[in-house]
Formats: sequence, structure tokens, C-alpha cells
Amino acid sequence: MDSALADLTAALPDGTVVTDPDILASYRQDRAFDPDAGTPLAVVRPRRTEEVQTALRWATAHRVPVVPRGAGTGLSGGATALDGGIVLSTELMRDIRVDPVTRTAVTQPGLLNAEVKKAVAEYGLWYPPDPSSYEICSIGGNIATNAGGLCCVKYGVTTDYVLGLQVVLADGTAVRLGGPRLKDVAGLSLTKLFVGSEGTLGVVTEVTLKLLPAQYRGCTVVASFASVAAAADAVVEITGKIRPSMLEFMDAVAINAVEDKLKMGLDRGAAAMIVAASDDRGAPGVQDTEYMASVFTEHGATEVFSTDDPDEGEAFVAARRFAIPAVEAKGSLLLEDVGVPLPALADLVSGVEKIAAQHDLMISVIAHAGDGNTHPLIVFDPADTAMEQRAQQAFGEIMDLAVGLGGTITGEHGVGRMKRAWLAGYLGPEAMDLNRRIKDALDPDGILNPGAAI
Amino acid sequence: MDSALADLTAALPDGTVVTDPDILASYRQDRAFDPDAGTPLAVVRPRRTEEVQTALRWATAHRVPVVPRGAGTGLSGGATALDGGIVLSTELMRDIRVDPVTRTAVTQPGLLNAEVKKAVAEYGLWYPPDPSSYEICSIGGNIATNAGGLCCVKYGVTTDYVLGLQVVLADGTAVRLGGPRLKDVAGLSLTKLFVGSEGTLGVVTEVTLKLLPAQYRGCTVVASFASVAAAADAVVEITGKIRPSMLEFMDAVAINAVEDKLKMGLDRGAAAMIVAASDDRGAPGVQDTEYMASVFTEHGATEVFSTDDPDEGEAFVAARRFAIPAVEAKGSLLLEDVGVPLPALADLVSGVEKIAAQHDLMISVIAHAGDGNTHPLIVFDPADTAMEQRAQQAFGEIMDLAVGLGGTITGEHGVGRMKRAWLAGYLGPEAMDLNRRIKDALDPDGILNPGAAI
Repeated sequence: MDSALADLTAALPDGTVVTDPDILASYRQDRAFDPDAGTPLAVVRPRRTEEVQTALRWATAHRVPVVPRGAGTGLSGGATALDGGIVLSTELMRDIRVDPVTRTAVTQPGLLNAEVKKAVAEYGLWYPPDPSSYEICSIGGNIATNAGGLCCVKYGVTTDYVLGLQVVLADGTAVRLGGPRLKDVAGLSLTKLFVGSEGTLGVVTEVTLKLLPAQYRGCTVVASFASVAAAADAVVEITGKIRPSMLEFMDAVAINAVEDKLKMGLDRGAAAMIVAASDDRGAPGVQDTEYMASVFTEHGATEVFSTDDPDEGEAFVAARRFAIPAVEAKGSLLLEDVGVPLPALADLVSGVEKIAAQHDLMISVIAHAGDGNTHPLIVFDPADTAMEQRAQQAFGEIMDLAVGLGGTITGEHGVGRMKRAWLAGYLGPEAMDLNRRIKDALDPDGILNPGAAI
Repeated sequence: MDSALADLTAALPDGTVVTDPDILASYRQDRAFDPDAGTPLAVVRPRRTEEVQTALRWATAHRVPVVPRGAGTGLSGGATALDGGIVLSTELMRDIRVDPVTRTAVTQPGLLNAEVKKAVAEYGLWYPPDPSSYEICSIGGNIATNAGGLCCVKYGVTTDYVLGLQVVLADGTAVRLGGPRLKDVAGLSLTKLFVGSEGTLGVVTEVTLKLLPAQYRGCTVVASFASVAAAADAVVEITGKIRPSMLEFMDAVAINAVEDKLKMGLDRGAAAMIVAASDDRGAPGVQDTEYMASVFTEHGATEVFSTDDPDEGEAFVAARRFAIPAVEAKGSLLLEDVGVPLPALADLVSGVEKIAAQHDLMISVIAHAGDGNTHPLIVFDPADTAMEQRAQQAFGEIMDLAVGLGGTITGEHGVGRMKRAWLAGYLGPEAMDLNRRIKDALDPDGILNPGAAI
């Protein structure tokens, strides 16, 4: 393998193939911190599509597994390294071209989500998808997981903004799919097939994104509730009538964890808090926010606060975004990502409370409530092996709970390696077989991200 | 084959398999009116998924080609019958269940688009996709072609509203993909792969649709222009700033054809007319429509008319929808569906004018201008063989023109059989091979809609 690796090193520009053990160690894990992560033979950091092709041709010739990696911020172990494999990091692929006339951007995968947003904002345009990690996650990783975020409730997820891709297949073939056309039904929907495929079908080397005009800054409404069910009912009523641009949920644990840190006067006695926003134009969102405030009040909200001051509104959104680090201050986190149909939100939260009590754990639930996509945050002490095991058990039980409520094992983080054991049970044998047939057709030797997702 | 067909007839409920020659004749063509259409062995009209499975198991066992058919309103020949094959019509699969709490509907494929809209409207909900044929096309056919429509410019296309599918594969296996979950990234995006696959990968037997709250009725602005380029420039400026809910284009031929019939006072001397709308809430769309009216004026519109009266607005939308039948009154139509990036709209229209002049044909261009998706309508007399040949030639030249301008051969109608000769050239060999690999993996015997799309 040493001589084969030397061939790869020689075939690529200087510095592209890295074998320094300290650097390799830093590419073993993503943010799932899989304790079983392997150590790769090499980290390959291409800058151009052709270099990705060279790497994959080499990997196919030598049957070397390839783990594609964006910014390494994944939470499901989709970029966990394998012993004897290579990690193909797209972090140096950072070009972007914005075309304000067609409202599209063509970008390499290594740009961070926040960098894409910033580049297009210079033209008065907006790339909506906004995972909580948007300042540290890459657009390529977003595409690999079909990432969501806070604005999904109105603006959809990553796949809704991907018009075209260039992908390199396992055998090194580069394929262009789609392009800067807003509507195009020629051939199968392969662009959409690659979005969310977690690096198992090919490596994305270029993306054509659809952009929207800059978002209108609307109004924000914050409400506290004495029960989760009341908050969930209010969410269901609102989403049946209007289209808020944000509808976020925090449970009591999250409210208190955030208040511990930010001291912004949140109601520590509340069972639930909703942060909602409307960005409709014309009498800036007032009609929608008045409506939402009235629904919250009718559902027994203990406190309702509305503002059309963008900074004041942003403070509450920041509080919601800060929930994960705030809860993380209590210990290490296992970050869940289960989705349930909206009416099951209260049942999910109470079920999680029971699981927490049974395993003597702190679990906080935050949620993109308008989508029914929840993030139970399981707190544990990694020095306490027994506790870590209880956390792992709770992690599985929460997925079982969600599936029992008609939900999914992952709403926006991906299956990766951590949820793979639950995938077949969730999809069923027929859909699992169909996944496998597509995978085998595109990657017959199974070199692309083996052990992840499907 | 007679005894094999008797087996199929016996295996399905009475009346499901039809062999009456007059009825068979009526299922030979869809609205592409392919003169080379075959005559099927039988038309099979199942009511349940299990019956579709029976039909496909039989077809696989006997290697009989299956042409899936919705309402037969397709314009690309995706449902053209084949000699010796069966036509599998989903027209009798007409159940629908609406769940207003999760804002989803589970429907069989045979319901018309308008019937779906009506069923969900009873719950104050809205299914947005609105192909011009919405009163006569089926939801299953919409899924097969990933149909678009007038509201796409803001609300997206069919795929954006399909949360889940039940599909029956060539071998008769029924597979459930997705479901009533707004966000779900477990496994490959197979739901999206089947949308737009034109019956080549499987037969859709059940659909879970995402619904929105009822649309807010906003304002309408109509503008006439002395040049297509001025109209196109106005469209580009508007879509860079706001998100209108409609942005439709008619050329001089269409304006005059509509005025011939409706006599509503359209400007017969105009080169282009734009019908735009905004449905933002709050001071009902006034801000957006005032903005659009001012952009039209700045770009030299010869007439601008705004209204917040829904009926008055609807009259102009109806005029736009009436453009196809109005032009059809001049002769038979070859209905094109090419898409171009927005800035190329004026070049496309002038290119089409040249093609029309060269071939001595009348060609009218209407367009979902906000998406760059155009429908050149080629008028010909089917009794005039030479003219029909010139029309066919123009049909191909318009696709070549669109591709040369960075556009696509089909924006929302599908490839079917009429555009298949252009697909490989448009996609390129790598993407074509990828399409083929997926097709072979899912339908190894090639019994599903052979000769259509890929």
C-alpha cells in the first residue's frame, strides 16, 4: 500500500495527499466523536474536480475505501474515518461565482454555509437553508445530508435550492447533473438523488444553487407555556393558517440552560417556549405576528412578547440557537434528530421525559416545531462509562419512540454510522433493498463511504 | 398471448382488463397524438395497489411492455401505447384522505389535479402546483412528469409537494417511500427519484402530498410592452427583488389570438404582455404590486393596469390560460416546453420568430416568465403534410435553440417519446449513462414504458 499511496501522491499537486500522523488523527472523527473511528492511510485535499477524479480512480484501482468529508461538523458519523481508507476532504475547494441576473451561484463544496450566504448577500440575494451550525458547516456537507435549519418551515431544505451538481462517481467519472435552469425535467431527477446521499454515491465537486431575493426582516413573537401540549397545539393551529418564517421550540431544560448563561429574563418556570417569526412584506408582518400572538394567548400562553425591532427579535433567535451550547455546558451531548408529525410533538416530549427519568439522565428537547423536527439533547459525562452507556441506550429508545409515533429516525442530520442500525427497521425490507440496488448500480465495488447510511 | 391475457383477466376483478377494440383505440395516444402510436393488447384499469402488483408480476413473467397512463393529457407522448403491450391506466384509483392537522393528503394517482385542490380546499388548505391543464390532468401524471404551472415561480413544482409515495416496481414489489413527515433524510432520496421518472421506474399507486394554508388572494398587475426585451428585462429586475406569485408572458401572436376570442381590450399592437401577481399578506400585496407596476413603467411599458379586485385579476389570469386554446383555434398545435435562463428569454423569442419565418409557420410564445420556462406553440394544418413536416422541423430547431442559450429541452412536460431523440445530446454521455444505470437497476427487463424518456 505504501507504493500505491506514493503513486497517488505523485499524481496530485504537492501537499494534496497528507500522511502526517498528527494531521491524520485530526481527521478521524466528525462531531459525532465516534469512539470506534479508524485511522486513515491518508487525507486527500483536492482543489479541483480533476484531482477528485484522480483520487477516486486510484481508490477504485486499489479497492481503497473513501470517506468524503466536508467541514467535519456532521453529528451522525457520516465522516468517521476507516482504518486503511482515505479521507477525501473538500475543505480546499472554495471558489464561488454569483450570477445576480439568473439568481444562481456556482460554488465548490468546501465553502461554509455562512460564506455562501455572505457572498450572495453582496448581490442582495439570499441562500435560505440555515442549519444551526451554519457558521462552521460546509455547503458540500449540507448537500450530503440534505441539511435543514430554522427557516425550513417556510423555505424548505437544502435540496430545494440545489439546481445542479457536478459529481465524481466511484470509478472517477465526472458527471454534470442539472444546471442554472429553474425548471428542468429532462431525464431522471438525479440531482435530487445525490442530495442527501451522504457520500455513498459520489463526491460532489460543484454545486449550482438557486437564490432568493434578500429576506424581508419581519416581526418576532415569543411565548411561554405552562405545558408542552398547549405549545404544540398552538403550533398546529398556526401552521394550518399561515406560513411563519420560523417556529422554534425549547423545553424547560433548554430554557433554564440558556437563562443560566444569557440572563435575558426567560421564564424559568415555563414548560415550553416558542420563538416565531413572520417575514411577509407589506405592513411588515404585523398581521401575521398579531395573529400568532392571539393564538398563543388563546392556548394559554403565560407570557407573549411581540417585536418588530429586528435586533430585539434576533436576540430571541440567538437564545434559541444558543440552546445547544448552553445545554452542552452541563456535560457532553448525544444530539438526536428525530422527526414526528406535528400533533405528536407533545407525546414525543413526554416520552423523552420518561426515557430521561428511567435512565437517570438530563435530556433537553429543542425543535424546529413547525416541521415536527426535534433535537433531544442527551447530556452525559464521558468519564462515567455507565452513564455513557445509559445515554447510548436512551439514544436508541428515542428513535424507537419517534418511529412509534409515525416519525423518522433523522430529520436533517443524516444516518451516518450512528443511526445505521435503525435504518433497515425504519425503511422496511423493500425500500432498503431499493436503496441497495441504487448503491450497487453506482458504486459496485462499495468503496464510497462504506458503513455509512445505506 | 391470448391464454396469458386470459390469466391476467382471471386474476383481476371483473372489468379491470379491457380488450374491446374501440376502447383500446381510445387509449392509443395521449395529447401528443403520436401518429406512430401502437395498439395495446389490453388496457388494465386497477383500483388498488395489489391489482397493480398483479399486473406487473404478469407483465414481467410474460415480458410484456407496460405503458403507465394517468389522464392521458401528456404532451410529450409519455403514454403513447405500444403494439403488444398493455396500457396500465390509473384513472379508477380515486381515493383521497386529507389530514388537516398534519396538512397532508394521501391520494391515489387517478384523481385530477383540480379534484385534489378541491378536496383539500374544504379544509382551508391548498395544493399549489397548477399546470394549465389542471382541470383535466391527474395527480399521478403530474408526479410522473414533475409538472409545473403558473405558481411555480414562488411555490415550486410537483416534487416540492410530494412527501411520500407507494410505488410498484417492474417485478410487482410494492415499496413505501417517505410519508407524512415534513423532513426526513433516512436513506436515499428515492421519493424524489420517482417524481419525474415518467413511468420508467415503477407505477405510483399512492401519494402523500404536503399542503399549504389557503393562498392569500393578492393583487394583479398587467403590463404591455412594445418589445419583448423590455418585458424580459422587467421580469429579471422584479425576480431579483421580490417573489411574485405569478409572472406570466404572452407574445404578440398570443395576445391577438386571445383578443380575437375574448375581446377584453388587450393591446393588439403590443409585442409582449406580462401578467403578474403578488399574494403576500398584510396590506394585501399592495407594496409588491406597486413595486412591479413601477418597474414595468420604468422599462417602458405602454400600458400598466393594477387591481386588488380578485375577480378582475382572475380575468387576466384566465386570458393567459386561454392563450393555448386561442392559438389552437388557428390550427393544430405542436406544444413546445423549452426552458432558458431568464436573461435569454428575449433571445429565445426572437430566435423562435426567425424559425417561424424560415419555415413559414405561425409560432406563438407564451411563458412562465419568472422561471424562464416557455411554451412556443407551433401552429400547423394536419391535412398539409409538408406543413406538418416543417412544424416537426421547427419543433427540433426550437430545442436546439434553447440548449444553445443554456436552456433545457423540457421544463415541465417531460421527455416522453417526442423529445427522446434530443435527450442524450442534452444530458451528455456521462449523465445519460447514469440514467441508464438507475433504469437497469430498477427495471432490468425494461418492461416499464420502453421507448419513453430514458
